[in-house]
Amino acid sequence: MVVVGAGLAGLSAAREVVRRDHSAIVIEARKRVGGRTLNRPIGGGKVIEIGGQWVGPTQDAMLGLAHEVGVPTFKTYNDGQNVYYRNGVLLPYSSGGPLGPVPPDPTGAADAEQAIVQIDQMASQVPREAPWTAPNAVEHDSQTIETWKRNNLTTENGRFLLDVGIEAVFAAEPRDLSFLFFLFYVSSAGNETNPGTFERLVNTGGGAQDSRFVGGSQLVSIKMAKQLGRRVFRGHPVRRIHQSATGVRVECDSLTVHGKHVIVAMAPQLAGRIQYFPALPASRDQFMQRVPNGSVIKCEAVYDRPFWRDAGLTGQAVSDADPVRVTFDNTPPEGSPGVLLGFIEGEAARRWGPRPAADLRDAVLKNFAAYFGDAALHPTAFHEMNWSNETWTRGCYTGFMPPGVLTDFGPALRAPVGRIHWAGTETSDIWAGYMDGAVRSGRRAAAEALAAL
Amino acid sequence: MVVVGAGLAGLSAAREVVRRDHSAIVIEARKRVGGRTLNRPIGGGKVIEIGGQWVGPTQDAMLGLAHEVGVPTFKTYNDGQNVYYRNGVLLPYSSGGPLGPVPPDPTGAADAEQAIVQIDQMASQVPREAPWTAPNAVEHDSQTIETWKRNNLTTENGRFLLDVGIEAVFAAEPRDLSFLFFLFYVSSAGNETNPGTFERLVNTGGGAQDSRFVGGSQLVSIKMAKQLGRRVFRGHPVRRIHQSATGVRVECDSLTVHGKHVIVAMAPQLAGRIQYFPALPASRDQFMQRVPNGSVIKCEAVYDRPFWRDAGLTGQAVSDADPVRVTFDNTPPEGSPGVLLGFIEGEAARRWGPRPAADLRDAVLKNFAAYFGDAALHPTAFHEMNWSNETWTRGCYTGFMPPGVLTDFGPALRAPVGRIHWAGTETSDIWAGYMDGAVRSGRRAAAEALAAL
Repeated sequence: MVVVGAGLAGLSAAREVVRRDHSAIVIEARKRVGGRTLNRPIGGGKVIEIGGQWVGPTQDAMLGLAHEVGVPTFKTYNDGQNVYYRNGVLLPYSSGGPLGPVPPDPTGAADAEQAIVQIDQMASQVPREAPWTAPNAVEHDSQTIETWKRNNLTTENGRFLLDVGIEAVFAAEPRDLSFLFFLFYVSSAGNETNPGTFERLVNTGGGAQDSRFVGGSQLVSIKMAKQLGRRVFRGHPVRRIHQSATGVRVECDSLTVHGKHVIVAMAPQLAGRIQYFPALPASRDQFMQRVPNGSVIKCEAVYDRPFWRDAGLTGQAVSDADPVRVTFDNTPPEGSPGVLLGFIEGEAARRWGPRPAADLRDAVLKNFAAYFGDAALHPTAFHEMNWSNETWTRGCYTGFMPPGVLTDFGPALRAPVGRIHWAGTETSDIWAGYMDGAVRSGRRAAAEALAAL
Repeated sequence: MVVVGAGLAGLSAAREVVRRDHSAIVIEARKRVGGRTLNRPIGGGKVIEIGGQWVGPTQDAMLGLAHEVGVPTFKTYNDGQNVYYRNGVLLPYSSGGPLGPVPPDPTGAADAEQAIVQIDQMASQVPREAPWTAPNAVEHDSQTIETWKRNNLTTENGRFLLDVGIEAVFAAEPRDLSFLFFLFYVSSAGNETNPGTFERLVNTGGGAQDSRFVGGSQLVSIKMAKQLGRRVFRGHPVRRIHQSATGVRVECDSLTVHGKHVIVAMAPQLAGRIQYFPALPASRDQFMQRVPNGSVIKCEAVYDRPFWRDAGLTGQAVSDADPVRVTFDNTPPEGSPGVLLGFIEGEAARRWGPRPAADLRDAVLKNFAAYFGDAALHPTAFHEMNWSNETWTRGCYTGFMPPGVLTDFGPALRAPVGRIHWAGTETSDIWAGYMDGAVRSGRRAAAEALAAL
């Protein structure tokens, strides 16, 4: 088995193939493994993540894998109060509560909450494995989230809260996305026994941001790659995939690998940049044209200590400021140094991406100061990562679908093309877009390819 | 100057460069020139086009170019009555009138007509060169055409008529497209002195389907290529484009060309499959991720003579049948053999693409028979072209924009990246998506690149 891509999906695929006593070769474009997860050392043997990092309840595949390879988890810091920054006014609010945190805007929060009840209810009727068969699927897929929002939320603050949630989940704007794709994504945010909910997507405690990995999320991939050993080839971008009646030939600039089947474990946009012989069917090629990646710049400021904790703050903000509208405490498990994490997402990431790094840093630190005090203005270090600039990623967190794509191209998402099988978190029916979905997609593709041997 | 792509845009760019006494090399992936225009011989020295074919008033660039290279035009056959086929009922109607043909459905036609008045009015406020600056641009770009249609047309038949028009213009569904992009496209359907209108997009007489080229539209490219002579290299897919402070290096598998600048004259999706060194900025890469190509299968049946003309019919149908909803008389200028042309567009093209050719032919001929009589069941030849299957096209007629793209990525459409300039009909502000826009885009890119020398 040949696997293209040594992110969580590709490595999980190869791991499954080897576990079933078949041979596997993994080919990775980068010099490193981990795909959209990436540790960055901050001194003293500690790391922060500048890619995907969280894990939470119902993400059983990722949690189980981390346990297998010996990467423990710990809770995301969530003690005390969040802050809500809106029109220049800062208000603290509880990070807990039975439904998760409720921002201190009674009108807007109630408006958003009734919308979320509707969304969860509609999502519960969306079959994860075939969202295009949901009730009113074509109607939902014919509109953007923005259109649905304007028709179903009535207050400016309610719409703002939904906007921040959508941007935080997709790193894209509500106008960019199909409402049916959104419902699928919500539906996908659960496991075999727990239906997905919007709350689980956006919450910290009990949600998708519940826990973190000791040593950084990339460590899971690094450990898998270590176990796979010389099966993993780094620094070899795959240029061409040939298939015949008997097997596949996967070609890089200075490496060619033969196998029975190939698993392409990449976001659809990147998979579309490989040359295929014979040419892929139109349904697959046009599908890959239609799943752009989100836009996010992840920014982290390092301080001697997490000073906001002293003030009883979680380090989490929801804000209408520019450019950072969502923050987290990303301090290592030892409790120092203090790390504040801010996301620049969607429109803001597209607008700020071309600007000078110093301007970006200034703007981010001013946001942090507005939320947590002037101590935020003087970090000991500042890290940023614009995933849209990465040649082998070209946007995070995930590929998303504009209107119309699920309706006319949905089945192409996972349908193998002869001896080519498709993995990557986008292809998962559970926790699509997350590390958990990546792991599941790799295992599914491996099972599918092995069954076809 | 290096030009990538020998369609109308690339050849027009090279022609302009040479006209200004600079040197040019054109590199084309295919063994032929013409891009999305393609003649097919039907015997007796006659051809039909299985790609782009029409030209009409205000398409001055294409008309002028054809005149320069000696390719005359003739009127699309438009004498007599069109047919309207709806719910199994066939009704003839006039192909003329001051506003063009009005389908024989008083309620639906009135509903569609008031919508078109609105559309034309809104389009008149969209600056062609920067549609994202139009009044209410973000609002329009936040919704699909489908959403606007549901909010602004009240009758089922009116919506149906708009659907057929949208599908015929974009080879995509109203749910696939941004309403702002649609308004831009309408705005673009005119010249410097005539504002664009929806009617000009869809009409035959006086519209974008007004006239045809004697010898086939591809002949314009063939003649340009002949004049450019040994400057045109065919059969060399460009794999890599390198740029430095002093020039560019364009690499194919067995050909490398050096130049001062390069003009990439391809649809954005295809341009995104080339490797660039240094890597392109995020704005350009993510833009190319977001402009998928439409989906169309062009079908033509050849008969001894154009028998429908005897019955006083134009050969033009508007229908709700599957798969062909729009037809034309595509008979050569000599008047024989008779050729009926049917388009399978958007959803229908995606659904029919994978089906056996014999099934497709049967279904198309049954449609033709329903519209023009049983004589249509027995052609002497049948031609089909699914442009989504073409490796070097991957969808026609053009790249389109889903919601949100113009708002956040609009300027990336044409902005050069160092020594790389972007042509292709999608980049034109006049007649974007048409042969005329291709010619204009090539000339604009040439002028831009020469000015930068």
